[in-house]
Amino acid sequence: MHNTSFNNREIDARYLAFDLQPADLAQGVAAIRALDLGGVNLSMPFKQTIIPMLDEITPRAQLLESVNVIKNSNGHLIGDSVDGEGFFANLIAEGVTVAQQAMVVLGAGGAGLSIIQAGIDHQLAEITVFKRRNPRFEQVAQQLATMAKGRSTKVRLVDYDDVAQMTTVVARSTLIVNATNLGMGDYQAQMPAPPGVLAQLNAHHVVCDVIYSPLETQFLSVAKQKGCQTFNGLGMLIYQGALSFKFWTGQDMPVQLVRKTIQTQLNQQ
Amino acid sequence: MHNTSFNNREIDARYLAFDLQPADLAQGVAAIRALDLGGVNLSMPFKQTIIPMLDEITPRAQLLESVNVIKNSNGHLIGDSVDGEGFFANLIAEGVTVAQQAMVVLGAGGAGLSIIQAGIDHQLAEITVFKRRNPRFEQVAQQLATMAKGRSTKVRLVDYDDVAQMTTVVARSTLIVNATNLGMGDYQAQMPAPPGVLAQLNAHHVVCDVIYSPLETQFLSVAKQKGCQTFNGLGMLIYQGALSFKFWTGQDMPVQLVRKTIQTQLNQQ
Repeated sequence: MHNTSFNNREIDARYLAFDLQPADLAQGVAAIRALDLGGVNLSMPFKQTIIPMLDEITPRAQLLESVNVIKNSNGHLIGDSVDGEGFFANLIAEGVTVAQQAMVVLGAGGAGLSIIQAGIDHQLAEITVFKRRNPRFEQVAQQLATMAKGRSTKVRLVDYDDVAQMTTVVARSTLIVNATNLGMGDYQAQMPAPPGVLAQLNAHHVVCDVIYSPLETQFLSVAKQKGCQTFNGLGMLIYQGALSFKFWTGQDMPVQLVRKTIQTQLNQQ
Repeated sequence: MHNTSFNNREIDARYLAFDLQPADLAQGVAAIRALDLGGVNLSMPFKQTIIPMLDEITPRAQLLESVNVIKNSNGHLIGDSVDGEGFFANLIAEGVTVAQQAMVVLGAGGAGLSIIQAGIDHQLAEITVFKRRNPRFEQVAQQLATMAKGRSTKVRLVDYDDVAQMTTVVARSTLIVNATNLGMGDYQAQMPAPPGVLAQLNAHHVVCDVIYSPLETQFLSVAKQKGCQTFNGLGMLIYQGALSFKFWTGQDMPVQLVRKTIQTQLNQQ
């Protein structure tokens, strides 16, 4: 994604993968400064642990307590979190109306929270989040309350097992997002919502999955059969990349070229 | 050179330039370990200052008190100095006989010393080194004595201004090497040896310049006119690269492909 874009934009840079041990994180951050790297993306488990090592983090990264991209501005390291904004940037590029809509988010892990946070920034009318009632439930409720404080979006956290509520809220919402891992890997055969909920889906719904492998989960397949507009996780992946690219270079990623390149590579697998 | 070779050998690696500040060297070395870089090359002023930060240095790097390549073997950093060996590897690949020959080296800077050291390893009969009688003269004399100790090659250090000796020794030697910067940049019009010395050159001499920009120095041009076999610094550059490549990857650099690629790029400039 980034190397294709660097080549296309004639920027003298390379995007490389470094496999750090958790104990080496502080040395890795020192390396960004010493080698004068332009920036980095981060994956788990570094998204939280790196925060105290940075010079600045954006308000949204602060709310999410998570950083997935760093820009090195002459040794001053700025952290941001762009997954959620990537999710909406893709929908908007595809012509989907998001402002004042009602959204359902299934799952409140890293991907779910970032989508919720960006949904608040995009002034959705309401966001209903379904999450398993495990020990993290109250903590997430608190985090969502902080995110929503003083904002126009109404955010509610509901027990994932409350099928009655899920049925009602899906029926009245337009954006339905699977932000769980149900549908990929070991959970490929599982659905993120029970049949009674899926029965509510119709042509008015925009149904999204953060999963991009497989490109079409069972969930998206059912939604498509019911006439919904559907989006897999590839657009979110590409647009969070485009936001990182813009953050580092100030330039726009050639997103259509990137999408074609990724599609070609996925087809070869 | 290295990226061409990585592509050709299908090795998943990239060779990149990092512009370190001298004060950041220790952080740079930490970065090699933290980011698990496969290895690095070093240029001035790091060739000496990095030595105490490494886990191991080869005997020749120890004698030269200089390191231009590091291999990272699971966090264990090994330093070597391969410029001089690169010089001889190129001559040998070109069919030049080096063992038991007499060599003259003009200049005893980093390039000169590394060629002298490698000449001892290649069992030359004698090496006569001409160097300006400046404050470093005695120190270099001492370093050469340490290098030659217990080896078969006779190494002598002579004042650069001793034209009589230079004339005599050039006449009886077969390998003549310019390891000064006379012939490049601001010194492009200057010759590393006076006319009386150049008058000794004939078809029995192999004349080399460590300079590769310009590709043909005035010195090489005169030597060629006198029927000498001549070599510019490009071969030494490529073969020190090949030795670094071998050190890092265990594989042989495709030297002919690399030479063609560099020639094409030089022709485009």
